[in-house]
Amino acid sequence: MIPLKEKQLEFESVYVDLHKFEQHSEWFIKVNPEGQVPVLDHNGTIITHTTVINEYLEDVFPEIPLRPYDPVGKARMRYWNKFVDEHVMNHVSMHGWHRMIGVIARNIESGDFEKLVEKIPLPDQRKKWKTARSGFSEADLQNATDKITYACQKVEDQLGKSKWLAGEMYTTADINFFCHCGMMVERMFPELEVAKNYPRLVDWRDRMNAREGVKQALAMPDHTNPALRTWTGEAR
Amino acid sequence: MIPLKEKQLEFESVYVDLHKFEQHSEWFIKVNPEGQVPVLDHNGTIITHTTVINEYLEDVFPEIPLRPYDPVGKARMRYWNKFVDEHVMNHVSMHGWHRMIGVIARNIESGDFEKLVEKIPLPDQRKKWKTARSGFSEADLQNATDKITYACQKVEDQLGKSKWLAGEMYTTADINFFCHCGMMVERMFPELEVAKNYPRLVDWRDRMNAREGVKQALAMPDHTNPALRTWTGEAR
Repeated sequence: MIPLKEKQLEFESVYVDLHKFEQHSEWFIKVNPEGQVPVLDHNGTIITHTTVINEYLEDVFPEIPLRPYDPVGKARMRYWNKFVDEHVMNHVSMHGWHRMIGVIARNIESGDFEKLVEKIPLPDQRKKWKTARSGFSEADLQNATDKITYACQKVEDQLGKSKWLAGEMYTTADINFFCHCGMMVERMFPELEVAKNYPRLVDWRDRMNAREGVKQALAMPDHTNPALRTWTGEAR
Repeated sequence: MIPLKEKQLEFESVYVDLHKFEQHSEWFIKVNPEGQVPVLDHNGTIITHTTVINEYLEDVFPEIPLRPYDPVGKARMRYWNKFVDEHVMNHVSMHGWHRMIGVIARNIESGDFEKLVEKIPLPDQRKKWKTARSGFSEADLQNATDKITYACQKVEDQLGKSKWLAGEMYTTADINFFCHCGMMVERMFPELEVAKNYPRLVDWRDRMNAREGVKQALAMPDHTNPALRTWTGEAR
């Protein structure tokens, strides 16, 4: 939502209810056979995966840019997006799954759960749902926390060198890290003592939160069950 | 090397001897603090990570393109590159490490090994070296094989719809999958019966091998110890 708001594009938001496994439902699988959000439908053209969508938006709507024009700036942005996609997102996500999806998965009756899992198109996601139900191992959760700690330090170091992650320009790399970690890391992981250990990250997060596009995106309806708000609320 | 050769760019190849841990040596850490290959040095500008390098080459040298001009084509290419980077590369790599790096790691005296590991900048890589020495678990190796099987089927399906992975144009997505899986999957995993199960993949691989740029890249000096040629030779 943030890139769309930042670029002042008009769009219709269609909520897919993950609590009801709508992402694995027939109508949604027709839109995205991988059964995953987010999906961009641009006049019938379907684009999936956040980072791919964000590059597409830059290619089609370059008027308000979130990607540098110079090749080196582009490379810095892509380096950081790759880092977030491969070394941050899934680790924060595991803690989110552990706290949130585990609760959902364990609340489903046994026979029903197996039926729901059968409908999941990606083998990886099938495995993840089963693990969420039985519980992630302490070693995996600790490894995920280590990766998040590493990422916070890396971001802290970078923000000592440049105003934004990819340089002096605000880019999709900032948005990516914000959404998958920066926005909620302090609330999700109080043991990291973010305010004390990563002051530049906190300052950067405040600058993110002060942006008109970010404010507008965060002001959109929050459909998450309040009891399960790992990302958007206080649940832990 | 393949994108450079395809684009007919002149370059100097500097071999970094992984058998001697040169990627963790002082001179190389100055070039890439992450201690990883490949690195592109373009007149002093350092770009790392294959997919980031390949996009950079398209941005700076668009004359012979390996990336579509239209935004949808670009998105398809990026979708596939992301898939290879996140769901293929590390799984083929694990089998490579298991067979090759394990042998190297176990041949180092105990004290020396710990000293070498200390020099590795990325925590993930430190972990990987230690695991390579002690051996990957059967479950992890099986999971990796499952991911490779899934990837081969996905590629086989796509090649029933388009000539190349991202559509009718040959792109960096083809090169990425070729280098990290397609080139050697039949040799590395005879149990997959690639010729029988994935005939379109085999046809695609033959078309890759017939390309001038690919031939030139593969004809470059092979520095790998012949006894350890998981990727380039017959070792298993």
